[in-house]
Amino acid sequence: MKNHTVFFKSGIYIEDTATIVGPKEAEGPLGRYFDKSVCDDLLGQKSHEKAEIRLHISAIRYLLNKTGHKDGDVDLCISGDLLDEIVGASLTMREFDIPFMGVYNACATFAESLILAASLIDGGNFERIICSTSSHFCTAERQYRYPLELGNQRTPLSQWTATGVGATMLNRVKGKIRIDCATIGRVVDYGVKDANDMGACMAPAARETLLAHLEGSSRDVDYYDLILTGDLGEAGSGLLRLLMEEKGVKLGEKYRDCGVLLFNKAAQDVGQGGSGAACSSSVFNSYVYKKMMCGELKRVLLIPTGALCSKTSTLQGESVPGIAHAVSFTLA
Amino acid sequence: MKNHTVFFKSGIYIEDTATIVGPKEAEGPLGRYFDKSVCDDLLGQKSHEKAEIRLHISAIRYLLNKTGHKDGDVDLCISGDLLDEIVGASLTMREFDIPFMGVYNACATFAESLILAASLIDGGNFERIICSTSSHFCTAERQYRYPLELGNQRTPLSQWTATGVGATMLNRVKGKIRIDCATIGRVVDYGVKDANDMGACMAPAARETLLAHLEGSSRDVDYYDLILTGDLGEAGSGLLRLLMEEKGVKLGEKYRDCGVLLFNKAAQDVGQGGSGAACSSSVFNSYVYKKMMCGELKRVLLIPTGALCSKTSTLQGESVPGIAHAVSFTLA
Repeated sequence: MKNHTVFFKSGIYIEDTATIVGPKEAEGPLGRYFDKSVCDDLLGQKSHEKAEIRLHISAIRYLLNKTGHKDGDVDLCISGDLLDEIVGASLTMREFDIPFMGVYNACATFAESLILAASLIDGGNFERIICSTSSHFCTAERQYRYPLELGNQRTPLSQWTATGVGATMLNRVKGKIRIDCATIGRVVDYGVKDANDMGACMAPAARETLLAHLEGSSRDVDYYDLILTGDLGEAGSGLLRLLMEEKGVKLGEKYRDCGVLLFNKAAQDVGQGGSGAACSSSVFNSYVYKKMMCGELKRVLLIPTGALCSKTSTLQGESVPGIAHAVSFTLA
Repeated sequence: MKNHTVFFKSGIYIEDTATIVGPKEAEGPLGRYFDKSVCDDLLGQKSHEKAEIRLHISAIRYLLNKTGHKDGDVDLCISGDLLDEIVGASLTMREFDIPFMGVYNACATFAESLILAASLIDGGNFERIICSTSSHFCTAERQYRYPLELGNQRTPLSQWTATGVGATMLNRVKGKIRIDCATIGRVVDYGVKDANDMGACMAPAARETLLAHLEGSSRDVDYYDLILTGDLGEAGSGLLRLLMEEKGVKLGEKYRDCGVLLFNKAAQDVGQGGSGAACSSSVFNSYVYKKMMCGELKRVLLIPTGALCSKTSTLQGESVPGIAHAVSFTLA
């Protein structure tokens, strides 16, 4: 097992965050923590892809307004989404006068963007970077699975792709919350071929990254007030608990999953819970950020998880490996 | 115009490179510079997607063998390709015990991976990183345009996606060639909607990044022995010359394009020349690398260029914006 845990020498701070979500997310248990929500997830656009782009633009613009920054104050946007060729993030960036780098690690993309941004700021050549990811239930369903119009029955282990955007502005100067270290994960393949059972695809990667993080940082589970995976869902996070116990680590009450927190499983018909590139970014940048800002949580380990597949790879019988990266946040 | 030019404090060196290409690329003018080539671009696999993954695995494995390194000696792979959800790079990384971050800026992905890797090494937390990108003519045609079986006529301004992989190993310790600085580009949209005319989509981005680089580095065109765009092709690089002249900069004899160098336009029926995420990576890591190693070229500016679209965005009538990043190499 080879992973890479990095400690940041300089203070890498969260300057501010922004979240916009769809109507279902707004009705969920975390509804009051989001900055904004839309009541129509088509946003008056001709397609849900165009709507997702509008959401992404709005979130970045809102973050700039909130912080009083102009485009020119930001050195770089590191962004991604689930659309083929991350075309949502790419077309979003048409609207901004900010250098852009596109990233993709499926639903672990938000972690990737945070770790890259923190490393770049730590290196001394960058002052301020925006990390953002979006996803949209309707664009993901038709791209990865079936057009919604078909009305396909959902499988018991399926999850509900979050509609929304989460954006974080990192800088080296000010902020109450800092990123102190992070662990970069590997692609972990347990041979799962059911692309609807994403929790099972991703749980082994989450375990590997979490174990590597605890070892690489010489910390234990109790060090953190909250350990939060990205979107393993109800079944997947149960699986992670079992997999960790196999290695002698009890996750206990401090472990949660963004996908489980985002929706009310009993009432909202979301299968095992939320998923999508915006799942961890919208939950972290709203609920977790606010809980940290008011001091209720002091140390949080966020582990966004990704299932690496495309419609083509699934049709060609490839397995769906997982990846997970861990980012440690601490009150400064 | 806001771009970001970064200078690397530490020496970021090329430890070694590896290239594998398809039969058409091997028959082109640069044939003898590539490490390896395959005579059947299906490689005995059931699909060209699976073949592209085999090529990518082989290139990284060859690079590890060449340098005598094990997986554990490499801190990170930063890789990408043109397949939906960069699933080629993602499934490639199943085979390696190396942390992975997936990146996507279309055919500018190689530049993105180099700039990120150089920045991470410069920051002090990483010793050795592999940057790699792949593309495959047959997978790109059917994904972005039409299945090859249809036998569609190619448009006059179309280009030929390179089949191959280029991989670079960067480290902080040894090597004759170093990356001294780089300029990160913005998404530039001139409203071009013809996804077959990629040169026109990307040339404005190449101009903006090149101008920003010259300004940010206080250098002029004469500083470099070679300025090399990624895959503007014959028509697109003519366009860049004109666009630069508009700003009073004559590119002259020192300017070349990887897509033009890769094929013999008159004899190989490639439209305006090569393109694809492997175009700049295979040309740089073979021809340019060897010309630098023997001292024939001392200072090279590589500007991979990307056209940001997906099949869906094209069908939905979106424009195809471009992006370009510049990386400066110098003999140490």
